[in-house]
Parts: sequence; structure tokens; C-alpha cells
Amino acid sequence: MDAITIQPIGEIHSPYKTPGNMPIQGVFGPDVEAWIELKEEYVSGLKGLEGFSHAVILYYFHQSQREDLQAMPFLEQVKHGIFAIRSPHRPNHLGFSIIKINSIVDNKIYFSQVDILDGTPVLDIKPYVKYFDQRDNVKSGWIDKHFKHGKIPHSTIIREKTKDEATKA
Amino acid sequence: MDAITIQPIGEIHSPYKTPGNMPIQGVFGPDVEAWIELKEEYVSGLKGLEGFSHAVILYYFHQSQREDLQAMPFLEQVKHGIFAIRSPHRPNHLGFSIIKINSIVDNKIYFSQVDILDGTPVLDIKPYVKYFDQRDNVKSGWIDKHFKHGKIPHSTIIREKTKDEATKA
Repeated sequence: MDAITIQPIGEIHSPYKTPGNMPIQGVFGPDVEAWIELKEEYVSGLKGLEGFSHAVILYYFHQSQREDLQAMPFLEQVKHGIFAIRSPHRPNHLGFSIIKINSIVDNKIYFSQVDILDGTPVLDIKPYVKYFDQRDNVKSGWIDKHFKHGKIPHSTIIREKTKDEATKA
Repeated sequence: MDAITIQPIGEIHSPYKTPGNMPIQGVFGPDVEAWIELKEEYVSGLKGLEGFSHAVILYYFHQSQREDLQAMPFLEQVKHGIFAIRSPHRPNHLGFSIIKINSIVDNKIYFSQVDILDGTPVLDIKPYVKYFDQRDNVKSGWIDKHFKHGKIPHSTIIREKTKDEATKA
């Protein structure tokens, strides 16, 4: 299996310049807006996307400097395999988010449910399709216990480091 | 934005050697099984994935030889932008599927809901999490009309080409 070369198709403009205060997943996000700036040459590929409420975007975790095989996710203090968590510090550093499309103007897609850092290179955009992308009888492994009885855990927003912690990091 | 180099972490072993008879999305698939053969060096990254019923996998559409900016999806005879359809013939040829995990044995993940060709290079595996990856009030653009009143359209399975069509292609 040979290496594959990927060329970014655009870039994220996000209010989150660092992970502090960013939600761990877009669905937990406050009502802030970001946008994708698509390279001009791809604009005709957006035709029809405006009819979808949500999109899947694939991107590159450009700020990650390492690859872990096991790590502690934000929700708990136990290590899990990297393929059982959503950490950016993973082989190939590929990210996947579901965004809520607000509007599309020329080469810009404005969206909410933002869990992506500013400057992130975008690799693909796909329509989110409820008939394809929702499943029944889903078991969510170690995550289920954190959402028992419909509760949302506190740690769905990444805690901003105190000045003291930031100096040490 | 610089080019990004990706190294496959494994490979798909699928009963589908060509697109003929393959479902357009795994959720429409018959009860066939495929498996991911993960490179040995990544096996410890699977710890905890066995607790999840489903996973998101990212892969490379290795059999696609072209990039369209607009194309006709299987479900209809009208062109849409590539970012509003799920065609493999897209910039960067990145694929995304939700699979149903049947079992994990050493470096092999056996799964159903298969819509991926044999030999496909795997780029990432992430847990599918209902609290992160399901959305309410989803509008699915041009696709909604094909699924009105809960119906499943006929063309969710890719038609096998007749010998005559295959010769011409």
C-alpha cells in the first residue's frame, strides 16, 4: 500500500484559535459560526449542497504534533485505543465533523456546530444524509455511561488552561 | 496550504470486487461480511472499539480514475455538485462509511453494512457515537424525495453491467 497525497480544497475560518473553550464535538457547541473558504476552482462542486441542513467534512488536524496509539479522551481518565476515541493525535491526523449549514455564498460555507480550529485544511465535503448516516440500536462503548438518562456531561467543552497550566504544557 | 501525505493503516477485504451488486450505502446492504486487515503496528489502537456497535471508517477510493466537479448520482439522472453527492470520483478520493462491527480478532475487524470494494486502503477508524453523530431535523436536499413516506428506492444496489455494457465501458 503506497502513500497517498492529498491536496486541501479549502480552509476553515473558526472563532476557536486554540482548543480552549471549544466543544469536544460540534453537537455540544454554543451558537457560534465558522466558515469554510473553498478554493475558487471547486465552487461548481457546491451545486445542490444548499438543500442539505448538515454536511460531513473531512479535514486535517494540522495542529497535532504526535500520533498516539492509546490515549485518555476528554470525557474520562482511562486510556482507550486511538480507534475507540476521537482524539486528533491519531495516525494520519484525519478529522471528521458533522456541521450545520447556515448559508452558502460563492465559495464560502457558513456553519454552526463548530468543533474545528481556525486554519484547519479541509479535504472533502459530503452531504449528511439521514437515510445513510443514522443507525438504530447503536452501542457507544465506553461513552454510553457518560450520557445515561439523557444527561450531557460537563466536559463536552474543552477547559481553557489556566495560565499556570499553560506555562507547564 | 501544502499537500498532505497519508499512509494507509490497513486494507479492506470485501466480497465486492467490482461495484456491480454493491449497495450504494452500507445501510442498504444485504447480510454480507467484509473485514479490515489492520497493519500489525496499529493493533493496540483497537482497545475498547469492541464495545461499539458501529464505526466510521475513512478510506481511499483507489479504483477511481477521475475527479468530477458535478455528476449524476445513482439515485437520479440530474447532475449535482460533487460536494452534494457521495460519488467516489471526487477531489482527493476520500471515502467515508459507517460499518456495523461484528467482531474484532487480533488485527482483523469483521463487519457488515458493506459498501466498500476489495483492496481499498483504510486511512482511519473512529468509533461511531450516537451522541455525536446523529442529528435531529435533518434536511437531505435532493435525496429526500426518493425516500418519501419511508420508501426505499430500487436503485440503492448498484446494477451489474450486462456483458454488452461492460464491453463498451
